[in-house]
Amino acid sequence: MSNKTRSADGGGPLAIILIGASGDLALKKVIPALFALYSRQLLPDRFQIIGYARSALSDEAFREHMMAHLTCRYAPGDQCDARIREFLEHCVYIAGQYDSADALRRIQPALASLGPTDAVNRIFYMAIPPFLFMDVARALADAGLVTHKDDPGWSRVVIEKPFGRDRASSDELTRNMARVFAEDQTYRIDHYLGKEVIQNLLVLRFANLIFDPIWNRAHVEHVKISWMEDFGLEGRAGYFDDYGIIRDVMQNHLLQILALVAMEQPVSLEAGYVRDEKVKALRCVQPATLEDLVVGQYTAGSLRSARRPGYREEEGVPPDSITPTYAAAALRIRNRRWDGVPFLVRAGKGLNARMTEIRIRFRPVPGNIFQHAAGHLANNELLIRVQPDAAIAFRIVNKAPGLTIALEESDLDLQYASAFPVQIPDAYECLLLDVIEGDRSLFIRADELAAAWDIFTPALHELESHRIQPRPYPFGGTGPDAAQALAARYGATW
Amino acid sequence: MSNKTRSADGGGPLAIILIGASGDLALKKVIPALFALYSRQLLPDRFQIIGYARSALSDEAFREHMMAHLTCRYAPGDQCDARIREFLEHCVYIAGQYDSADALRRIQPALASLGPTDAVNRIFYMAIPPFLFMDVARALADAGLVTHKDDPGWSRVVIEKPFGRDRASSDELTRNMARVFAEDQTYRIDHYLGKEVIQNLLVLRFANLIFDPIWNRAHVEHVKISWMEDFGLEGRAGYFDDYGIIRDVMQNHLLQILALVAMEQPVSLEAGYVRDEKVKALRCVQPATLEDLVVGQYTAGSLRSARRPGYREEEGVPPDSITPTYAAAALRIRNRRWDGVPFLVRAGKGLNARMTEIRIRFRPVPGNIFQHAAGHLANNELLIRVQPDAAIAFRIVNKAPGLTIALEESDLDLQYASAFPVQIPDAYECLLLDVIEGDRSLFIRADELAAAWDIFTPALHELESHRIQPRPYPFGGTGPDAAQALAARYGATW
Repeated sequence: MSNKTRSADGGGPLAIILIGASGDLALKKVIPALFALYSRQLLPDRFQIIGYARSALSDEAFREHMMAHLTCRYAPGDQCDARIREFLEHCVYIAGQYDSADALRRIQPALASLGPTDAVNRIFYMAIPPFLFMDVARALADAGLVTHKDDPGWSRVVIEKPFGRDRASSDELTRNMARVFAEDQTYRIDHYLGKEVIQNLLVLRFANLIFDPIWNRAHVEHVKISWMEDFGLEGRAGYFDDYGIIRDVMQNHLLQILALVAMEQPVSLEAGYVRDEKVKALRCVQPATLEDLVVGQYTAGSLRSARRPGYREEEGVPPDSITPTYAAAALRIRNRRWDGVPFLVRAGKGLNARMTEIRIRFRPVPGNIFQHAAGHLANNELLIRVQPDAAIAFRIVNKAPGLTIALEESDLDLQYASAFPVQIPDAYECLLLDVIEGDRSLFIRADELAAAWDIFTPALHELESHRIQPRPYPFGGTGPDAAQALAARYGATW
Repeated sequence: MSNKTRSADGGGPLAIILIGASGDLALKKVIPALFALYSRQLLPDRFQIIGYARSALSDEAFREHMMAHLTCRYAPGDQCDARIREFLEHCVYIAGQYDSADALRRIQPALASLGPTDAVNRIFYMAIPPFLFMDVARALADAGLVTHKDDPGWSRVVIEKPFGRDRASSDELTRNMARVFAEDQTYRIDHYLGKEVIQNLLVLRFANLIFDPIWNRAHVEHVKISWMEDFGLEGRAGYFDDYGIIRDVMQNHLLQILALVAMEQPVSLEAGYVRDEKVKALRCVQPATLEDLVVGQYTAGSLRSARRPGYREEEGVPPDSITPTYAAAALRIRNRRWDGVPFLVRAGKGLNARMTEIRIRFRPVPGNIFQHAAGHLANNELLIRVQPDAAIAFRIVNKAPGLTIALEESDLDLQYASAFPVQIPDAYECLLLDVIEGDRSLFIRADELAAAWDIFTPALHELESHRIQPRPYPFGGTGPDAAQALAARYGATW
């Protein structure tokens, strides 16, 4: 979240080494984002994108793979093809094993083409499964590809979740990676933090006076953070069944959102200060207990009239899998601001909608003089919808026009699509530019990661050591009934 | 603002005696509102509308006058004519002098047609200039038309501003009228209080938790209440030149709005309690001083390319008139909630727009961490627009989508036209129904009227005794520069 006006700094030559370049993450997310930055002239003049993966591909074949996913969001239609061609000239491909320093050494000539090698800045983007992170990092070091502290050029590494399976394995990953990349060279990406609505959370909270006095336990009844997916595994059984929804979504995306909602105002927007406050908030979150946690797993069902298999029937899933595809938890933040306010979080696959949103529900009006006139009165609620249609809405109570004093809920709202008729950048564009500029505020610091793991590690161990069966819920529904009951215990509904 | 579900009570027979029935107020506002109530079956089964005025008209001629202004807002198109015909059968006309008890006595047969006379409820609607109120009231009493305390039927009188020219003359009017009609029979109408957005003010404030902690001097920087008209006298020179904008708009409509914005929560919605709080707020408003008051008068100008004469050139206006057609004042409320918060009110004719709105501007964010990032930051503001397009909007600061952290103001808003796709009743419909039902909460009580006069009476006397010249401003502009300077002294702009 840079304060500066962004522009190609022309600073130093930049090599972006994309490890796992032939995979989905690289082709669908990272490369299109790099192309978008290129189109907006936000990459340095001298740059190379160096794809690296095991598949044997020629530069040409790699470029053809890339082209299939490039669209011209920022270039006028008639210049689109030319812009893509120019961009592809900056892209090369090298095949090799992930743990082979020898193979990786073949990247050197591409670096050298940018100028004196030790002055070339480099971003190592690990678009590979996490179990490979360490092997690659060691091989990169062995190949002499990582700059040294005194070199004029810098090295940064970008990694994506999952960062381990629990607190201990996460710590181990952090420790091992730190042998090659120092903490300030490490960019742990959570692409949700690059989303506009999420970036707006700090602005909403700290650049507006009106939210200040109501953002606390005296005024907030509960907070709900929901992540719903209307699809199943989409071919990711191998990864997903090993991790489950708590590790895949809750421990990272949802806790990051929770931290942004709950944190105190930082000293400034400087990355260190923002992360200090997030860590502090996360450290005050009490570990989730099984009493306040519901896990579920979808069974066969249907969505929009199409039959869908149950989780255990999906290809690659063991028939006795107890991996949760749904989880709902009530979390507590034991600090001055939030003590006693439940933070209800849920995430699920195979539900009836695709949606991510935050709902902050305020307490009832004390001494409400409209009670007799209007019967049941809705509480105020602030909705921050991340997707599908980014929006902010304040639900307030109004007099319904007419001759009686009937009250009605209506929304003071702001739809991103109509309020901001501009091209909204993809989360990856924003985050990659931050990596290039060395702004770490939207990346997860090691202590933050540890604090987040502490919240779910005990419950994960219990679920797994006792092989607790997830509650079945039909694909295309709203999740297990027990999750509703959990919310109801805190006076909420999902 | 009745709590009950409204419906024709079928209670007792009702006579609505419309004094000044051939005038604009009666024909354009009161009768169409009565027809709307009739169409919605909100008038009792037995009712008569008895028009009374000086013009010699037959019932037929009167009905034709009425028909010209009736539209079927609540009746299906094909039933419209039939509904109008039925309605007109309830209307009769009697001609006579306003001060003649003998002439008024000719109303008796129409009352008797509704049943035993002392059981007929009656509303005397004084759609006449205020200097006639007393004469009519006395003549009504002399003619024996006003029910007695122990009669089964009731009598109520409806009067409209101006209620006097200052505190003393207002008190005199109140005292004189009280000889015929007790305070609880007197309905002083301010049609602005019948407008939906204004009625919503209490709901917004007291049925929503979120406004509660910010509605005070700690969070509000200033309040602006604006009333702009883009027309001139429209033939009302005789009345207007005698009164001026302060008496015509500020002392009543704007102070009523101010009272609703500033008042404390009443014990309940019961009329007496609501008005108790309004009086209390008005009594804390310090009398306007000439230092904090700007008066103006429009000169020739143009609006939407049409030349418009100056005020003193309008027909019926003396060439040396010092009557203000514009006024702006900074008012202070000396109480715990508002001390130090300027309430800036302005009203003007011959301006460049027609608009009535309230703007509550909040203080800057203390310790704003976005200051360096974003330069000048807008304060939050709550806009409540009464007309032209009724709306509520909260201006907040958001991150403008994009790769930098540019901030942008945008509105969380609610447009009545889209939020409430229903027929919004006219203010008079609502107020007349309240008179029928005996709900006085939207009418001005005598002590409220006195408190409102106290705010402007000293300044009015000074302006007039020193013949202070109003500042000229061209028709079609935004008013005199001095009004901007006044706002600027309080950190505001109009």
